[in-house]
Amino acid sequence: MNCIIRPCTVKDCKVILQLTKVIAIDYKVPPAHLKVTLEALREDRFGAQPMYDCYVAELPSGQNSKKGDSIVGYVLSTYTYSTWKGRNVYIDNLYVRPEFRGQQIGKQLMKKTAEVALKKGCSQIRMHVARWKENENRFLTCCGSENLTAKEGWNLFRFEEDTLWRLAAHNKF
Amino acid sequence: MNCIIRPCTVKDCKVILQLTKVIAIDYKVPPAHLKVTLEALREDRFGAQPMYDCYVAELPSGQNSKKGDSIVGYVLSTYTYSTWKGRNVYIDNLYVRPEFRGQQIGKQLMKKTAEVALKKGCSQIRMHVARWKENENRFLTCCGSENLTAKEGWNLFRFEEDTLWRLAAHNKF
Repeated sequence: MNCIIRPCTVKDCKVILQLTKVIAIDYKVPPAHLKVTLEALREDRFGAQPMYDCYVAELPSGQNSKKGDSIVGYVLSTYTYSTWKGRNVYIDNLYVRPEFRGQQIGKQLMKKTAEVALKKGCSQIRMHVARWKENENRFLTCCGSENLTAKEGWNLFRFEEDTLWRLAAHNKF
Repeated sequence: MNCIIRPCTVKDCKVILQLTKVIAIDYKVPPAHLKVTLEALREDRFGAQPMYDCYVAELPSGQNSKKGDSIVGYVLSTYTYSTWKGRNVYIDNLYVRPEFRGQQIGKQLMKKTAEVALKKGCSQIRMHVARWKENENRFLTCCGSENLTAKEGWNLFRFEEDTLWRLAAHNKF
Protein backbone atom coordinates (compact mmCIF):
# COMPACT_ATOMS: atom_id res chain seq x y z
CA MET A 1 0.00 0.00 0.00
CA ASN A 2 1.52 3.32 -1.06
CA CYS A 3 0.26 5.62 1.69
CA ILE A 4 1.17 9.26 2.05
CA ILE A 5 3.17 9.79 5.23
CA ARG A 6 2.80 13.43 6.32
CA PRO A 7 2.88 15.56 9.51
CA CYS A 8 -0.43 15.52 11.37
CA THR A 9 -2.64 18.60 11.22
CA VAL A 10 -5.05 20.05 13.80
CA LYS A 11 -7.86 18.36 11.90
CA ASP A 12 -6.22 14.89 12.23
CA CYS A 13 -6.24 15.06 16.04
CA LYS A 14 -9.83 13.80 16.19
CA VAL A 15 -8.97 10.55 14.40
CA ILE A 16 -5.71 10.16 16.34
CA LEU A 17 -7.61 10.47 19.63
CA GLN A 18 -10.07 7.80 18.45
CA LEU A 19 -7.17 5.49 17.61
CA THR A 20 -5.48 6.05 21.00
CA LYS A 21 -8.75 4.87 22.58
CA VAL A 22 -8.73 1.75 20.42
CA ILE A 23 -5.16 1.00 21.62
CA ALA A 24 -6.27 1.58 25.23
CA ILE A 25 -9.08 -1.00 24.85
CA ASP A 26 -6.49 -3.45 23.52
CA TYR A 27 -4.34 -2.82 26.62
CA LYS A 28 -7.42 -3.06 28.89
CA VAL A 29 -6.95 0.52 30.15
CA PRO A 30 -10.26 1.72 31.67
CA PRO A 31 -11.71 4.76 29.82
CA ALA A 32 -11.62 6.75 33.10
CA HIS A 33 -7.81 6.49 33.06
CA LEU A 34 -7.56 8.33 29.74
CA LYS A 35 -6.90 11.98 30.59
CA VAL A 36 -6.12 13.55 27.21
CA THR A 37 -9.04 15.42 25.61
CA LEU A 38 -9.26 16.52 21.97
CA GLU A 39 -8.55 20.10 23.04
CA ALA A 40 -5.46 19.00 25.00
CA LEU A 41 -4.15 16.84 22.14
CA ARG A 42 -4.46 19.82 19.79
CA GLU A 43 -2.95 22.33 22.23
CA ASP A 44 -0.08 19.96 23.14
CA ARG A 45 0.98 19.76 19.49
CA PHE A 46 -0.04 23.08 17.95
CA GLY A 47 -0.02 25.40 20.98
CA ALA A 48 2.78 27.63 22.23
CA GLN A 49 4.73 24.66 23.68
CA PRO A 50 4.61 21.66 21.31
CA MET A 51 5.11 18.48 23.34
CA TYR A 52 5.12 15.80 20.66
CA ASP A 53 5.69 15.06 16.98
CA CYS A 54 3.17 13.10 14.95
CA TYR A 55 3.01 11.72 11.41
CA VAL A 56 -0.03 10.09 9.86
CA ALA A 57 -0.41 7.46 7.14
CA GLU A 58 -3.08 8.61 4.72
CA LEU A 59 -4.71 6.60 1.95
CA PRO A 60 -4.15 7.88 -1.60
CA SER A 61 -6.63 10.56 -2.69
CA GLY A 62 -10.27 9.52 -2.77
CA GLN A 63 -9.85 6.32 -0.69
CA ASN A 64 -11.33 5.88 2.78
CA SER A 65 -11.05 3.31 5.58
CA LYS A 66 -14.12 1.45 6.84
CA LYS A 67 -14.51 4.22 9.45
CA GLY A 68 -15.04 6.77 6.69
CA ASP A 69 -11.77 8.65 6.94
CA SER A 70 -8.48 8.47 5.10
CA ILE A 71 -6.10 8.09 8.09
CA VAL A 72 -5.09 4.45 8.56
CA GLY A 73 -2.17 4.82 10.98
CA TYR A 74 0.09 7.20 12.85
CA VAL A 75 3.31 7.47 14.82
CA LEU A 76 3.58 9.84 17.78
CA SER A 77 6.92 10.61 19.44
CA THR A 78 8.90 12.90 21.73
CA TYR A 79 12.59 13.61 22.29
CA THR A 80 14.49 12.30 25.29
CA TYR A 81 18.13 12.65 26.29
CA SER A 82 20.81 10.18 27.26
CA THR A 83 23.99 11.32 29.01
CA TRP A 84 25.76 8.54 27.12
CA LYS A 85 24.28 9.03 23.65
CA GLY A 86 22.72 12.51 23.52
CA ARG A 87 19.35 13.30 22.04
CA ASN A 88 17.11 10.41 21.02
CA VAL A 89 13.52 9.77 19.92
CA TYR A 90 10.94 8.04 22.09
CA ILE A 91 7.89 6.62 20.27
CA ASP A 92 4.76 6.70 22.43
CA ASN A 93 2.50 5.09 19.79
CA LEU A 94 2.88 3.51 16.39
CA TYR A 95 -0.43 2.22 15.11
CA VAL A 96 -1.95 0.87 11.89
CA ARG A 97 -5.66 -0.05 11.61
CA PRO A 98 -5.95 -3.87 11.69
CA GLU A 99 -7.52 -4.09 8.22
CA PHE A 100 -4.50 -2.28 6.72
CA ARG A 101 -1.77 -4.35 8.35
CA GLY A 102 0.70 -6.47 6.34
CA GLN A 103 1.06 -3.70 3.74
CA GLN A 104 4.28 -2.11 5.06
CA ILE A 105 2.47 0.96 6.39
CA GLY A 106 4.07 0.49 9.83
CA LYS A 107 7.45 0.29 8.15
CA GLN A 108 6.75 3.48 6.19
CA LEU A 109 5.96 5.22 9.50
CA MET A 110 9.19 3.83 11.02
CA LYS A 111 11.15 5.07 7.98
CA LYS A 112 9.74 8.58 8.47
CA THR A 113 10.57 8.50 12.20
CA ALA A 114 14.14 7.39 11.42
CA GLU A 115 14.53 10.17 8.81
CA VAL A 116 13.31 12.83 11.24
CA ALA A 117 15.44 11.41 14.08
CA LEU A 118 18.62 11.55 11.97
CA LYS A 119 17.79 15.04 10.73
CA LYS A 120 17.47 16.20 14.35
CA GLY A 121 20.81 14.66 15.31
CA CYS A 122 19.40 11.72 17.25
CA SER A 123 21.30 8.44 17.43
CA GLN A 124 18.57 6.16 18.83
CA ILE A 125 14.84 5.48 18.78
CA ARG A 126 13.27 3.86 21.83
CA MET A 127 9.83 2.39 22.36
CA HIS A 128 7.92 0.24 24.86
CA VAL A 129 5.78 -2.73 23.91
CA ALA A 130 4.05 -5.22 26.18
CA ARG A 131 5.65 -8.67 26.20
CA TRP A 132 2.34 -10.32 25.20
CA LYS A 133 1.84 -8.17 22.06
CA GLU A 134 3.43 -10.74 19.78
CA ASN A 135 2.82 -9.02 16.44
CA GLU A 136 4.22 -5.72 17.72
CA ASN A 137 7.29 -7.47 19.18
CA ARG A 138 7.86 -9.22 15.86
CA PHE A 139 7.39 -5.97 13.90
CA LEU A 140 9.98 -4.11 15.99
CA THR A 141 12.50 -6.94 15.75
CA CYS A 142 11.88 -7.20 12.00
CA CYS A 143 12.58 -3.43 11.68
CA GLY A 144 15.97 -3.98 13.34
CA SER A 145 15.42 -3.01 16.97
CA GLU A 146 16.64 -4.92 20.02
CA ASN A 147 14.64 -5.85 23.10
CA LEU A 148 16.76 -4.29 25.85
CA THR A 149 14.61 -5.74 28.61
CA ALA A 150 15.36 -9.25 27.37
CA LYS A 151 18.99 -8.51 26.42
CA GLU A 152 20.17 -6.27 29.26
CA GLY A 153 17.43 -6.51 31.87
CA TRP A 154 16.11 -2.93 31.64
CA ASN A 155 12.87 -2.54 33.60
CA LEU A 156 10.42 0.37 33.39
CA PHE A 157 9.32 2.07 36.61
CA ARG A 158 6.46 4.55 36.92
CA PHE A 159 5.47 7.03 39.62
CA GLU A 160 1.78 7.89 39.45
CA GLU A 161 0.39 11.34 40.25
CA ASP A 162 -0.66 10.55 43.84
CA THR A 163 2.93 9.43 44.52
CA LEU A 164 4.26 12.67 43.03
CA TRP A 165 2.11 14.69 45.44
CA ARG A 166 3.31 12.55 48.36
CA LEU A 167 6.98 12.91 47.36
CA ALA A 168 6.59 16.65 46.85
CA ALA A 169 5.04 17.01 50.33
CA HIS A 170 7.80 14.98 52.02
CA ASN A 171 9.80 17.13 54.45
CA LYS A 172 11.59 14.76 56.79
CA PHE A 173 15.15 14.29 55.54
CA MET B 1 22.34 14.90 55.20
CA ASN B 2 20.83 18.28 54.48
CA CYS B 3 22.06 18.93 50.94
CA ILE B 4 21.14 21.89 48.82
CA ILE B 5 19.13 20.75 45.79
CA ARG B 6 19.47 23.35 43.03
CA PRO B 7 19.38 23.59 39.21
CA CYS B 8 22.69 22.65 37.60
CA THR B 9 24.86 25.41 36.18
CA VAL B 10 27.26 25.39 33.21
CA LYS B 11 30.10 24.90 35.72
CA ASP B 12 28.48 21.72 37.15
CA CYS B 13 28.50 19.96 33.75
CA LYS B 14 32.11 18.84 34.25
CA VAL B 15 31.27 16.91 37.44
CA ILE B 16 28.02 15.57 35.95
CA LEU B 17 29.91 14.20 32.96
CA GLN B 18 32.41 12.51 35.30
CA LEU B 19 29.51 10.90 37.19
CA THR B 20 27.82 9.68 33.98
CA LYS B 21 31.11 7.89 33.20
CA VAL B 22 31.10 6.27 36.65
CA ILE B 23 27.55 5.00 35.98
CA ALA B 24 28.66 3.69 32.55
CA ILE B 25 31.48 1.68 34.17
CA ASP B 26 28.92 0.20 36.57
CA TYR B 27 26.76 -0.82 33.57
CA LYS B 28 29.85 -2.13 31.71
CA VAL B 29 29.35 0.32 28.83
CA PRO B 30 32.65 0.64 26.91
CA PRO B 31 34.09 4.20 26.98
CA ALA B 32 33.99 4.28 23.15
CA HIS B 33 30.17 4.04 23.33
CA LEU B 34 29.90 7.30 25.28
CA LYS B 35 29.22 10.01 22.72
CA VAL B 36 28.42 13.06 24.86
CA THR B 37 31.33 15.50 25.29
CA LEU B 38 31.53 18.27 27.88
CA GLU B 39 30.79 20.83 25.18
CA ALA B 40 27.70 18.88 24.04
CA LEU B 41 26.41 18.43 27.60
CA ARG B 42 26.69 22.20 28.15
CA GLU B 43 25.17 23.13 24.77
CA ASP B 44 22.32 20.60 25.17
CA ARG B 45 21.24 22.24 28.45
CA PHE B 46 22.25 25.89 28.12
CA GLY B 47 22.20 26.39 24.34
CA ALA B 48 19.39 27.68 22.15
CA GLN B 49 17.46 24.38 22.38
CA PRO B 50 17.61 22.97 25.94
CA MET B 51 17.13 19.18 25.77
CA TYR B 52 17.15 18.21 29.43
CA ASP B 53 16.58 19.41 32.99
CA CYS B 54 19.12 18.74 35.72
CA TYR B 55 19.27 19.33 39.47
CA VAL B 56 22.33 18.72 41.62
CA ALA B 57 22.72 17.80 45.30
CA GLU B 58 25.39 20.02 46.81
CA LEU B 59 27.03 19.68 50.22
CA PRO B 60 26.45 22.56 52.64
CA SER B 61 28.91 25.43 52.24
CA GLY B 62 32.55 24.61 52.83
CA GLN B 63 32.17 20.81 52.63
CA ASN B 64 33.64 18.70 49.84
CA SER B 65 33.40 15.08 48.72
CA LYS B 66 36.50 12.87 48.58
CA LYS B 67 36.87 13.96 44.94
CA GLY B 68 37.37 17.56 46.04
CA ASP B 69 34.08 19.03 44.87
CA SER B 70 30.79 19.77 46.56
CA ILE B 71 28.41 17.92 44.15
CA VAL B 72 27.44 14.51 45.56
CA GLY B 73 24.51 13.61 43.31
CA TYR B 74 22.24 14.72 40.49
CA VAL B 75 19.03 13.93 38.65
CA LEU B 76 18.73 14.49 34.89
CA SER B 77 15.39 14.31 33.09
CA THR B 78 13.40 15.14 29.96
CA TYR B 79 9.70 15.45 29.14
CA THR B 80 7.82 12.80 27.21
CA TYR B 81 4.18 12.56 26.16
CA SER B 82 1.52 9.91 26.57
CA THR B 83 -1.67 10.00 24.49
CA TRP B 84 -3.42 8.51 27.51
CA LYS B 85 -1.96 10.69 30.29
CA GLY B 86 -0.44 13.78 28.66
CA ARG B 87 2.95 15.23 29.54
CA ASN B 88 5.21 13.26 31.85
CA VAL B 89 8.79 13.29 33.10
CA TYR B 90 11.40 10.73 32.10
CA ILE B 91 14.46 10.43 34.36
CA ASP B 92 17.59 9.43 32.46
CA ASN B 93 19.87 9.39 35.54
CA LEU B 94 19.49 9.72 39.26
CA TYR B 95 22.81 9.26 41.01
CA VAL B 96 24.34 9.73 44.48
CA ARG B 97 28.03 9.11 45.16
CA PRO B 98 28.37 5.76 47.01
CA GLU B 99 29.95 7.32 50.14
CA PHE B 100 26.90 9.61 50.54
CA ARG B 101 24.18 6.97 50.16
CA GLY B 102 21.72 6.12 52.94
CA GLN B 103 21.34 9.80 53.83
CA GLN B 104 18.12 10.50 51.89
CA ILE B 105 19.91 12.51 49.20
CA GLY B 106 18.31 10.38 46.47
CA LYS B 107 14.92 11.02 48.03
CA GLN B 108 15.59 14.78 48.12
CA LEU B 109 16.38 14.61 44.38
CA MET B 110 13.16 12.62 43.78
CA LYS B 111 11.18 15.20 45.79
CA LYS B 112 12.57 18.01 43.61
CA THR B 113 11.76 16.06 40.42
CA ALA B 114 8.20 15.47 41.66
CA GLU B 115 7.76 19.16 42.53
CA VAL B 116 8.96 20.28 39.10
CA ALA B 117 6.84 17.62 37.35
CA LEU B 118 3.66 18.75 39.11
CA LYS B 119 4.46 22.41 38.46
CA LYS B 120 4.78 21.61 34.73
CA GLY B 121 1.44 19.77 34.69
CA CYS B 122 2.88 16.25 34.46
CA SER B 123 1.02 13.30 35.96
CA GLN B 124 3.77 10.66 35.89
CA ILE B 125 7.51 10.14 36.25
CA ARG B 126 9.10 7.21 34.41
CA MET B 127 12.55 5.69 34.66
CA HIS B 128 14.49 2.61 33.57
CA VAL B 129 16.66 0.54 35.88
CA ALA B 130 18.42 -2.75 35.16
CA ARG B 131 16.86 -5.75 36.88
CA TRP B 132 20.17 -6.66 38.57
CA LYS B 133 20.64 -3.22 40.20
CA GLU B 134 19.05 -4.32 43.45
CA ASN B 135 19.66 -1.16 45.48
CA GLU B 136 18.22 1.05 42.73
CA ASN B 137 15.17 -1.22 42.34
CA ARG B 138 14.62 -1.08 46.11
CA PHE B 139 15.05 2.71 46.18
CA LEU B 140 12.45 3.27 43.44
CA THR B 141 9.95 0.91 45.07
CA CYS B 142 10.58 2.57 48.45
CA CYS B 143 9.84 5.97 46.85
CA GLY B 144 6.45 4.64 45.71
CA SER B 145 7.00 3.67 42.07
CA GLU B 146 5.80 0.50 40.37
CA ASN B 147 7.83 -1.83 38.17
CA LEU B 148 5.70 -1.88 35.01
CA THR B 149 7.87 -4.50 33.34
CA ALA B 150 7.13 -6.93 36.18
CA LYS B 151 3.49 -5.85 36.63
CA GLU B 152 2.31 -5.35 33.05
CA GLY B 153 5.07 -6.83 30.90
CA TRP B 154 6.35 -3.59 29.30
CA ASN B 155 9.60 -4.21 27.41
CA LEU B 156 12.02 -1.57 26.14
CA PHE B 157 13.11 -1.69 22.50
CA ARG B 158 15.95 0.32 20.98
CA PHE B 159 16.92 1.13 17.40
CA GLU B 160 20.62 1.99 17.12
CA GLU B 161 21.97 4.59 14.71
CA ASP B 162 23.04 2.12 11.99
CA THR B 163 19.47 0.77 11.97
CA LEU B 164 18.09 4.31 11.64
CA TRP B 165 20.24 4.87 8.53
CA ARG B 166 19.08 1.55 7.10
CA LEU B 167 15.40 2.33 7.76
CA ALA B 168 15.75 5.84 6.33
CA ALA B 169 17.31 4.42 3.15
CA HIS B 170 14.55 1.80 2.70
CA ASN B 171 12.55 2.43 -0.45
CA LYS B 172 10.79 -0.81 -1.31
CA PHE B 173 7.23 -0.63 0.00
